[in-house]
Amino acid sequence: MEARDATATIRDYLQHSASETQAALAGSLPAGWDVPGRLREAMLYSLDAGGKRIRPALVLTAAEAVRGFASDREAALTVACAVEYIHTYSLIHDDLPAMDNDDFRRGKPTNHKVFGEAMAILAGDALLTHAFKLVADAAARGVSAETALAISGELAVLAGASGMVGGQVADMLGEQGITAIRELEFIHLHKTSDLIIFAVKSGARIGGANARQLELLEIYGRNIGLAFQIQDDILDLVGDAVKLGKPTNSDVEQRKVTYPFLIGMEESKALVASLTEQAKTAIIEAELADPSRLLQIADYLVHRDH
Amino acid sequence: MEARDATATIRDYLQHSASETQAALAGSLPAGWDVPGRLREAMLYSLDAGGKRIRPALVLTAAEAVRGFASDREAALTVACAVEYIHTYSLIHDDLPAMDNDDFRRGKPTNHKVFGEAMAILAGDALLTHAFKLVADAAARGVSAETALAISGELAVLAGASGMVGGQVADMLGEQGITAIRELEFIHLHKTSDLIIFAVKSGARIGGANARQLELLEIYGRNIGLAFQIQDDILDLVGDAVKLGKPTNSDVEQRKVTYPFLIGMEESKALVASLTEQAKTAIIEAELADPSRLLQIADYLVHRDH
Repeated sequence: MEARDATATIRDYLQHSASETQAALAGSLPAGWDVPGRLREAMLYSLDAGGKRIRPALVLTAAEAVRGFASDREAALTVACAVEYIHTYSLIHDDLPAMDNDDFRRGKPTNHKVFGEAMAILAGDALLTHAFKLVADAAARGVSAETALAISGELAVLAGASGMVGGQVADMLGEQGITAIRELEFIHLHKTSDLIIFAVKSGARIGGANARQLELLEIYGRNIGLAFQIQDDILDLVGDAVKLGKPTNSDVEQRKVTYPFLIGMEESKALVASLTEQAKTAIIEAELADPSRLLQIADYLVHRDH
Repeated sequence: MEARDATATIRDYLQHSASETQAALAGSLPAGWDVPGRLREAMLYSLDAGGKRIRPALVLTAAEAVRGFASDREAALTVACAVEYIHTYSLIHDDLPAMDNDDFRRGKPTNHKVFGEAMAILAGDALLTHAFKLVADAAARGVSAETALAISGELAVLAGASGMVGGQVADMLGEQGITAIRELEFIHLHKTSDLIIFAVKSGARIGGANARQLELLEIYGRNIGLAFQIQDDILDLVGDAVKLGKPTNSDVEQRKVTYPFLIGMEESKALVASLTEQAKTAIIEAELADPSRLLQIADYLVHRDH
């Protein structure tokens, strides 16, 4: 737990979170389970592909922030894995030829390029399904059945038809035809923010947050999710392809409608700053035992360069 | 509840169950939810496509069988919908071009033929995800959070990587190369039996079954699931295409390895009979309050002609 002390930089702190998540992910699909070998490979291939592990970090950080110490760490880590399972499945399905048709993800060939389309679809289905097993398991690791069930129901809502999948559909239907900022916001709120809201709120539930705190944490999640997405749009235009692990200007080439495209670069940067402030205000109002890391994460997401 | 009295034939009983399920399904994705219209259409298109609704019927029947009366009906109906959501999503994904590439299902164009591949993938994802919301909702409808969570965890296992999805993968990898009955059994146990086991056990949990009863009901589910699948293989060879709602001899044309192909027609029929007897023995040993309908369903599955 060394890196978790208050003097560690947020970068070290997130790095430590990511390592903890990585270790938990390694045990999240027990070897004893009778899973066809090739399916297991396909699931682990994308789970291991890494990324910033921001969503799991938010589960862990929110749990700590509410209670002020690393309580119920096992339960929080289990739910942190669940959110990464959901995020990973969504990337696998998004990359499919019928969807975005991407050959690379985080610098590695996409799942279907390695395992074929059918296996990629099934590996995504299996990851999505197993996320709910992980949430159910949290109840054996320090939270009540009521809390685990509330987390499970909320995951189904925020990852589902009126949440992340709904955002993905809106994105697909609106491609190249989006003219209003409101439509773009709908897409990103659901495609990106909803899972971040889930991460923050589920961690907070594990930490024992009250209803008012959950509401404020939802505002935090919504705003940093949106800021995160707009920052992604900005980095696609001005970022460093090596740091990003993917080509820049891909949005322009794909004629994707983005925030910079719709409202300009300066306005987009101002919007990121304003959303970040709103997120931080919500955290301060929530009167958490230790708000510092959540405040730092909000700033980190704006200042990151990849 | 008229059709649920003891004298109704099993066909009337199942018909009544199917109508109840249909009515519950109609309210299972509330209109107030902010789901993109086209996604909702795609989800409902396949949910409404009907079929025999055997799995939901098993949830309802098992709940009644354990307790001897229609207790916790709302909770059982909610879980009955969940199992139909899972079954429906699996059919949508199975039918995709990258998988079985089927143009028709239950006499209607498949989901991707109507809504396109991307939407079919996402509609499947949304149905799968929403199933877990429904299970969580069962807790507000008469079961404890502990029971709802146990059902949720079991659904994730039996529908996931070591369950239904695993069976689908084994089927895909083994296609045309299966030489041993053991491999074929593995596929069907997971592809078909696991969700039937879930249906029976979740209903029994709602009815308040003890551990020994749950074990015996698992044996029942496993055996009727396998018998159901072998009967499907048999009907594909000797059934009536109109009653089945799909062309016969498709397995032969697709060079699919089936039970009749591997062990012959007579042996297959004998196996169906023996599995059915084992299922019925388990039910009798379980000392349920009212075993009659579960016994009748086991027989019905063997004698059905579609």
